[in-house]
Amino acid sequence: MLDFTIQNVLIAVSDDYATVDVQIVDGAIAAISPSLQVIGTAIDGKNKLLLPGFFNAHTHSSEMWQRGIISMFPLELWLAELYDFAPLDPEQVYLSALGTAVETLLSGGTSVVDHLVLIPGLELETIAIATRAYKEVGIRAFIAPLIQDESLTAGMPSGESAQTHEPYFRSAAATLEIIEEAVRQFHRPDEGVNILVAPTGIQLCTDALFEGCTELSDRYNLCRHSHLLETRAQEKLAQEKYGCTAVEHLKRIGFLSNKTSLAHCVWLNDADIAILAETQSTVVHNPLSNLRLGSGIAPILKYRQAGVNVTFGCDGASSNDSQDLLEAIKIGSILHNITDSDYQHWITPRQAVKMASLGGAKGLNIADKVGSLTVGKQADLVLYDLTNLSLLPRTDPIGLLVLGRPSNVVNSAWVNGKQIIADGKVTTINVNELRQELFNRSQWETKRKSETVAQIEAHYRTVMGL
Amino acid sequence: MLDFTIQNVLIAVSDDYATVDVQIVDGAIAAISPSLQVIGTAIDGKNKLLLPGFFNAHTHSSEMWQRGIISMFPLELWLAELYDFAPLDPEQVYLSALGTAVETLLSGGTSVVDHLVLIPGLELETIAIATRAYKEVGIRAFIAPLIQDESLTAGMPSGESAQTHEPYFRSAAATLEIIEEAVRQFHRPDEGVNILVAPTGIQLCTDALFEGCTELSDRYNLCRHSHLLETRAQEKLAQEKYGCTAVEHLKRIGFLSNKTSLAHCVWLNDADIAILAETQSTVVHNPLSNLRLGSGIAPILKYRQAGVNVTFGCDGASSNDSQDLLEAIKIGSILHNITDSDYQHWITPRQAVKMASLGGAKGLNIADKVGSLTVGKQADLVLYDLTNLSLLPRTDPIGLLVLGRPSNVVNSAWVNGKQIIADGKVTTINVNELRQELFNRSQWETKRKSETVAQIEAHYRTVMGL
Repeated sequence: MLDFTIQNVLIAVSDDYATVDVQIVDGAIAAISPSLQVIGTAIDGKNKLLLPGFFNAHTHSSEMWQRGIISMFPLELWLAELYDFAPLDPEQVYLSALGTAVETLLSGGTSVVDHLVLIPGLELETIAIATRAYKEVGIRAFIAPLIQDESLTAGMPSGESAQTHEPYFRSAAATLEIIEEAVRQFHRPDEGVNILVAPTGIQLCTDALFEGCTELSDRYNLCRHSHLLETRAQEKLAQEKYGCTAVEHLKRIGFLSNKTSLAHCVWLNDADIAILAETQSTVVHNPLSNLRLGSGIAPILKYRQAGVNVTFGCDGASSNDSQDLLEAIKIGSILHNITDSDYQHWITPRQAVKMASLGGAKGLNIADKVGSLTVGKQADLVLYDLTNLSLLPRTDPIGLLVLGRPSNVVNSAWVNGKQIIADGKVTTINVNELRQELFNRSQWETKRKSETVAQIEAHYRTVMGL
Repeated sequence: MLDFTIQNVLIAVSDDYATVDVQIVDGAIAAISPSLQVIGTAIDGKNKLLLPGFFNAHTHSSEMWQRGIISMFPLELWLAELYDFAPLDPEQVYLSALGTAVETLLSGGTSVVDHLVLIPGLELETIAIATRAYKEVGIRAFIAPLIQDESLTAGMPSGESAQTHEPYFRSAAATLEIIEEAVRQFHRPDEGVNILVAPTGIQLCTDALFEGCTELSDRYNLCRHSHLLETRAQEKLAQEKYGCTAVEHLKRIGFLSNKTSLAHCVWLNDADIAILAETQSTVVHNPLSNLRLGSGIAPILKYRQAGVNVTFGCDGASSNDSQDLLEAIKIGSILHNITDSDYQHWITPRQAVKMASLGGAKGLNIADKVGSLTVGKQADLVLYDLTNLSLLPRTDPIGLLVLGRPSNVVNSAWVNGKQIIADGKVTTINVNELRQELFNRSQWETKRKSETVAQIEAHYRTVMGL
């Protein structure tokens, strides 16, 4: 790892900017001050803005293979189409993990939480190859193997009808053994790879699976991740399944904690919000998929007022259909202005930056290590080129970055002090080769029919009153 | 003008794609078919998608100077801050018109409707220099000089209080004379420059101004453009001012027609919607500024069901804060999924493309000339590079373009058959010089205070019940 000093760079200080030098020694921020001595390589920070790296705090990397093509459906039908065409080849998982990492990095992210869809029968192989991809790129990786122990149809409310479901092909206990083996093999926080316990959500998991995950989390000090109340259908299902809200139930079984991050959180009531605050759980806001799937607007301003930590995710690339973190931050900020007419509650660009960086770090229980430009923290840093047309004319750099539509603005990025983007290019892998592989392994298409959608659509429309 | 033939290019046909050649002769589409003879220059269309150019159907170019910096405010306060710092130098207007044209072109637009803020006392000069900028770039321009005849404070509802307002500095008649002179000097549809009559909106215009605009529109065959019911405050104001809705009033005074396009249309009721359909008026949807300013969600799905023509705009760059048309199309499509739980009503990517192209042409009364890939129409065309990482893996090209987050994907663009983007670069002006000028004439800043906001904020909060 090479020491370096960024000179004459703009950083945010209280409600202003300052021009400083930043020394990075042994992968950590050693000093931030004007006119520092150059240690290691000198890097020209002139006309550039330095920010802590953002967190893409919820995604599913292999969805990249289906971006742009899934029908305009709500989650429950969208999911059926997704699974009918999910990639089953570990090499595809490898390529889409690379692609997810690259797009995250080029939009200001230095960490990614991959709620990773596992290839049935090749679970450990899937985790191994995603780990390999993230290590090769050098992004900080939080691999959250997506597990469930109920079959897909169990994820919809029954309504008036008596529904029965196929049992899931593997027991909770057997699934937990796989996760424990993955922890043993791949969980290396110091090397930038973390395994999380990550049940899909209340819609597809029994209490046994949640409780087993909590036990593993406690034993190995793992973060916990899950979907939570993404859709109105899930809100109904929770009442059918537990006779209380999903949040009340998750609290009762002990899943909520200061190392628990919960994707979506669209359909929570005020009592639920108080529980998230009390348990110090983190909400991961995925505004683009919430719109695309018609899930609703998560009550993010209420979370902030209640003191709940909130950060942003792109969600998988086939419900977004991109991995541009700056887009998620922009829409995830301005979307809420229509939910509260008092503009004094609206999220400012500086608050959005803090949510995306320190908020992400808090949700993954590493706020003492990364998430801000603080002496002593690891250097997960991004340097933005303020001379790019999309950031001109010069006004407020953070305002331009968050509220504008920046493209090609990431000049450099470092993770743990290692440079992985320089001059706007990823330095660790060959992105042109990646592009070629993605091209060669796919074809343009318009017509495909999901058999599962055909089976379940009528029931969905009935239950949802459509 | 050079004839050319695009070979082996993907185009959209019914619900599929076809690979064809497209001949352009004398600026118009002469033939679309596989294996055509090459006329003029051969252009390689392999792995590219050809679409009709989109319309950036509502913007205010000079707002570019304040993008990223205006406080998180609702329209009425935002506007006060905007005007306190509006550029007053025609050279700035020139540069921001160039910038607006470039960003529109690089995101798939070939036409721009510039609801142009006029420098007081230099109205014709402002129009002249914007005209010059658009002609230099070569984008199809619809210059809609922003006029009003009431002062800014008249734009807010009075509520219980008795408010008086300064008279506006120029009469409706004098303003209309300026517009008529602009029409004589600059309205040249065949050369790609159109002048529109464009009263700001009911909040700042008397009936005399609206009626004078209608008269000019009839006499010179000009399109009509205005803001309409962007905010809840404007809805209240219309009731105070007219005792009926703004739409009922505009119909009564004859402003609505098949050449009238109306920006925003957030606060319309069902009877208003029926009036828009009956008068064949066009709604210009500006989703990003509607979110940024907390204006609300325009009922776009209702418009479509009622048969109202809808197209997209970026709105000015300080309420967006960008001019990326693909972003406006994406958010303007998926935003509405949360307003209607029946997904069969949701806007599909193909529908969005049609709204952005043919919908824009209809709104400007030129659907017989542009807006689709139709033999005989003028060649306002955009060629997208489908090998760009943001459009990979290959799935549904239009799905990727509309739902994804494409960047650097416009390979070529032609307006009226003239190529103005080639190999991803604008060919008509020097974009690096533009960038340098924008940089030199601006500075990074965070702290500025709007005096007008300080004067009106208390009243705004009272009237709006905050």
